[in-house]
Amino acid sequence: MPRIVVDVMPKPEILDPQGKAVHGALPRLGFHAVTDVRQGKRFELEVEAADDATLAEVHELAGTLLSNPVIEDYAVRVEA
Amino acid sequence: MPRIVVDVMPKPEILDPQGKAVHGALPRLGFHAVTDVRQGKRFELEVEAADDATLAEVHELAGTLLSNPVIEDYAVRVEA
Repeated sequence: MPRIVVDVMPKPEILDPQGKAVHGALPRLGFHAVTDVRQGKRFELEVEAADDATLAEVHELAGTLLSNPVIEDYAVRVEA
Repeated sequence: MPRIVVDVMPKPEILDPQGKAVHGALPRLGFHAVTDVRQGKRFELEVEAADDATLAEVHELAGTLLSNPVIEDYAVRVEA
């Protein structure tokens, strides 16, 4: 069964408190290679077929239910 | 500056209440193409260089700070 992945990330101009919290914790824990962290969401959707109608539906739900278009960007891709 | 993406998803055998909630909302909202939803996290880490030492550090922090290895799996990949 095909899987569609929807990645939802905070827009670049939006503050990302979760990512900042992770980034701030790294030096205390001994990690020094990472210069910035942003945290978002990943959705894995199982679908019957990854055809055009399904992809259109997934784009619609990604832009309405899965993300907040005021503060987040989403990306849709088909896996396997 | 290279970006390393860490995807953290609930293990397949673990219940995923967030994904179940999204899945349950879909028919009410008129979406019928999706048969299952799982929700996880996506981290985008900016690094100076995606060399072996950095990747080893990212794997360590992905398995300790970014994910809970009891209930979650993580995947690390380098993006441009």
